[in-house]
Amino acid sequence: MNYYNIKSIANANFEDIKAKVLKGLQDEGFGVLTEIDLKSIMKKKLDKDYLPHTILGACNPVYADKVLQIEPNISTMLPCNVTIKELKNGTIEVATINPAAAMGSVNNAEIIELAKEVQAKLLKVLEGFG
Amino acid sequence: MNYYNIKSIANANFEDIKAKVLKGLQDEGFGVLTEIDLKSIMKKKLDKDYLPHTILGACNPVYADKVLQIEPNISTMLPCNVTIKELKNGTIEVATINPAAAMGSVNNAEIIELAKEVQAKLLKVLEGFG
Repeated sequence: MNYYNIKSIANANFEDIKAKVLKGLQDEGFGVLTEIDLKSIMKKKLDKDYLPHTILGACNPVYADKVLQIEPNISTMLPCNVTIKELKNGTIEVATINPAAAMGSVNNAEIIELAKEVQAKLLKVLEGFG
Repeated sequence: MNYYNIKSIANANFEDIKAKVLKGLQDEGFGVLTEIDLKSIMKKKLDKDYLPHTILGACNPVYADKVLQIEPNISTMLPCNVTIKELKNGTIEVATINPAAAMGSVNNAEIIELAKEVQAKLLKVLEGFG
C-alpha cells in the first residue's frame, strides 16, 4: 500500500485547484487546521526557489476524536496532509496521505479500520478531479 | 520501532513545558510551522471537553529540503509532530513522532537514513526533560 494517493491535473491553475481541494475536503467533513506554504518557507529559510507547494492539514473531528480515545499518542500523526504542488510543466498534483499505510506502524487494528474510512473520504476528494 | 517517543513530567505546568519544548526545538534547528489546540477544536466542533493537548508541526528546513529533493510526495508526511498533553493526574506528556517508523511505508533507504537523523534531533529535545 503506497503512503499517498495522487491526481495530476494538466494545464491547471494552482489557486483554482487549491480552492477545489478545500471545497472537496469540506464536503467530506474535514476542516483545514493548518496550511504550510513550502515555497515561501524555503525562500525565507534557505533562499531556495521552490515551485508552489502547499501542505494542508485536514482533520475530520469525529474521526480524530475516535482515534484519540483509542490511542492518545496518535496525535503525533494528525492531521491528515493533503498537498498541492506545481510541476515545471504546469501540471498540478494533488496528493493525500494514505492514513492506513502511514499508521501501519501503530499496530492497532481498530485504528487501521478507522484510518481506512478516513482514507476513503480523502480518495473521494481526489475523485473530484476526474 | 514505536511510532513515537515520549517523556512524562509529573506535577508540571502545561505552558511551562510547551515553552521548554519550543526552546528545545529551536536549539535543534526546527522551526514550528503549525500549532493545533485540540482542546479548543474538540470543544468548538464536538462540544467535548478535552484536557490541554497541543500538536506542534516542527520542521528542520535543511532536512525537509533534502527529503523533498529525493521524494517530492514526502510532503504528505511533513512536518514532524511534537505533542504536549496534560493527563488527569496533572502529568504532562511530551511525544515526538518517530519519523523513521512513520516513513517506513515510503520504502526509500535514503529517506529512512535522513529520517533517523531527524529522529535523533527530536530525541535530544525529549532528553531536555531528564
